[in-house]
Amino acid sequence: MAEKSFNIKSSVVSMRTRNPIRAIVDNLKVKPNPEKEFISLALGDPTTFGNFNLHPTCVEAVKKQLDSYKANGYPPSVGIEPARAAVAKAYTRPEAPLTSADIILSSGDALNLCIGALANEGQNILLPRPGFSLYETLASSKGIECRFYNLDPSRTWEIDLDHLQSLIDENTTAILVNNPSNPCGSVYSKQHLLDILAVADKHKLPIISDEIYADMAFKGHEFTPLANLTKTVPILTTSGLAKKYLVPGWRLGWILIHDRNGAFREIRKGLVNLTQLILGPNSVIQAALPDILSAPQSFYDETMEQLEKNANISKKLLSNIPGLHPVFPQGAMYLMIEIDTAQFKDIKDDVVFVEKLAEEESVLCLPGQCFRTEGSFVRIVFTPPVEKLDIAYTRIREFAARHHI
Amino acid sequence: MAEKSFNIKSSVVSMRTRNPIRAIVDNLKVKPNPEKEFISLALGDPTTFGNFNLHPTCVEAVKKQLDSYKANGYPPSVGIEPARAAVAKAYTRPEAPLTSADIILSSGDALNLCIGALANEGQNILLPRPGFSLYETLASSKGIECRFYNLDPSRTWEIDLDHLQSLIDENTTAILVNNPSNPCGSVYSKQHLLDILAVADKHKLPIISDEIYADMAFKGHEFTPLANLTKTVPILTTSGLAKKYLVPGWRLGWILIHDRNGAFREIRKGLVNLTQLILGPNSVIQAALPDILSAPQSFYDETMEQLEKNANISKKLLSNIPGLHPVFPQGAMYLMIEIDTAQFKDIKDDVVFVEKLAEEESVLCLPGQCFRTEGSFVRIVFTPPVEKLDIAYTRIREFAARHHI
Ligand SMILES: Cc1ncc(COP(=O)(O)O)c(C=O)c1O
Ligand SMILES: Cc1ncc(COP(=O)(O)O)c(C=O)c1O
Repeated sequence: MAEKSFNIKSSVVSMRTRNPIRAIVDNLKVKPNPEKEFISLALGDPTTFGNFNLHPTCVEAVKKQLDSYKANGYPPSVGIEPARAAVAKAYTRPEAPLTSADIILSSGDALNLCIGALANEGQNILLPRPGFSLYETLASSKGIECRFYNLDPSRTWEIDLDHLQSLIDENTTAILVNNPSNPCGSVYSKQHLLDILAVADKHKLPIISDEIYADMAFKGHEFTPLANLTKTVPILTTSGLAKKYLVPGWRLGWILIHDRNGAFREIRKGLVNLTQLILGPNSVIQAALPDILSAPQSFYDETMEQLEKNANISKKLLSNIPGLHPVFPQGAMYLMIEIDTAQFKDIKDDVVFVEKLAEEESVLCLPGQCFRTEGSFVRIVFTPPVEKLDIAYTRIREFAARHHI
Repeated sequence: MAEKSFNIKSSVVSMRTRNPIRAIVDNLKVKPNPEKEFISLALGDPTTFGNFNLHPTCVEAVKKQLDSYKANGYPPSVGIEPARAAVAKAYTRPEAPLTSADIILSSGDALNLCIGALANEGQNILLPRPGFSLYETLASSKGIECRFYNLDPSRTWEIDLDHLQSLIDENTTAILVNNPSNPCGSVYSKQHLLDILAVADKHKLPIISDEIYADMAFKGHEFTPLANLTKTVPILTTSGLAKKYLVPGWRLGWILIHDRNGAFREIRKGLVNLTQLILGPNSVIQAALPDILSAPQSFYDETMEQLEKNANISKKLLSNIPGLHPVFPQGAMYLMIEIDTAQFKDIKDDVVFVEKLAEEESVLCLPGQCFRTEGSFVRIVFTPPVEKLDIAYTRIREFAARHHI
């Protein structure tokens, strides 16, 4: 008789945990032109080029904790009290008060905790399209059905609320709203946020409000935390240090539990339970958090000034390119360009656009497919230094002209 | 018609994610004696008393990365290459070779990733009893059945392999082995490890080898990484900086994938998929990892010297207390004391022992129930400074004498 052999299958959950971006990016045929310097406009990480840096006071805050030799032990799974109190203090508003008991610190898993607490396998959750692909990864991993509601590029990516409502059924557990938006760079008006809340209220659905780009709005646009606008809709707001503080690798985020009339009584317990699985973010960064959140206002102002300068250059250099219709950003660090494929000889969709652009011009951006965008769009990350943006946009212009009919 | 209200239930998964310790600890009636200084021998965190500190070179390594402003971006979800290479280099052995492709860095979720990749809801996993309660939390969270195999205190907590084998059925997915052990302080001999491997081989079961206390063995005992002893049994070894480097709060751990004959081909993919859910540990600590792992040998030697001194004091001061039978530790930072309840007037079990000890003597230890121990045991963490241990043990002796029949 043949000996039995090790026959080890990977679990169903591990096999269904996939980021849809990866399948697309792995299949992209990107061979940059060796004659031209490669410029990536693809990565949502503001630190890659060295032009956006965290503030030195934040570095000092962490060093102080290291030197104390007192911040190396296990923190409570929801985070240490002073750090949670500092987050509460920074985000509490008279309209939406918060105490440290409403804060959970997280290590890259704020959205995972929220989705995990709110939905069961077989239920569904409403996600933006186009949207950040991790939402789908997290939900699919848990066997939660993803239903995608449309954002309308002709209304600077506002939510198509009729479409959203048409997706709701008795198995719908939550609406995920992302404002400001990746990949759209949109910042919703107060009125639009009120309209979204009215829908949630009507259907009695809680909201997960992904505000990782909180406060990152350009002049003429105002970011409003969703929870400030409702006394009835319970909201879990997620955010963190990643973008505003320019330290995505530090893995320190948080959940603001905006309970309304005790609707989140059970969810609070569920969230706390789930934090026990990994025990939260690095203890040294937690200990430094009160100081980090007190970085001088000038730091944010300067970051936003620089981002807005980049946004404006993007507007200027990407306007009036025949066949390309950029939707100009209102905040965050992204913009989407619609490709009128009918105007091009040999560019049938966003993937071909991205592949040819890389091959001919050594400029990389991501196809809208990565965000489940309908139609042909590409996403531009406009955090590189202006000199690089200048070169990249000139190349895009030349590329578009060359392929135009 | 009454308006509908928000009726938000927490998910099944979040409700079943519970650490069994918490239910026991939350119900403990601990009112320390206000006349006596409180001494906790309960927490498995060597940093609490300030007598065990990480090495200054490790602090400098992290500061260097902070000062570079180059280690703040998103790392790959499995960890940055130089950090994984450093772990591979530190742990590769001719008998069990490792390259960076066999390493996954983790942020408090190494065990969670391993259990999550190996087992489906409804399957079962074999866990040590007594054992670290997080195993149960992780498995139950995923709907995986926990089957507890006995450790035998009369054989310094070796595994009762007959009992273990009696638990195996067609739904068994893995055996979890913890060596050196929390809560037992045992370090298994090579022969015992070979016997464990023979069972795994016979039943073709992979092993998760929790070696978070790797190398922490006292004189006369030798720690052997389980994977060094087999060419056939596939093993996922978990470990990290927490204990040996005295930084449990830093949340940097790793999985060593000891594949054997391609048995883990699928599991590798499953593990990588699962890392996408949280994107791994803090980028600054990752960047510092090669330097951290190069801390001078004298640092480990001194840590172990100090731990062993504490272990020896524990042996000396806890010996010959009527009614108490300590099982002396061979490594790690724990020991278990068996309580011969028949010899005491009014101590019917471990929980009563712990409650009365706290109330009368202001000394806290954890009841064996926290680890699902059979019979009446308490666990002692012997990392406090010797002066405190001295006081605590004297109080335990007086307490036991007072309650002895
Ligand atoms: C919309 C959105 N939400 C969340 C995140 C994740 O942020 P974190 O770095 O905190 O995991 C990102 C990162 O790009 C994002 O774009
Ligand atoms: C046996 C055992 N495994 C794993 C861990 C968890 O270690 P970490 O701090 O890496 O989560 C502990 C912590 O006490 C432990 O005792």
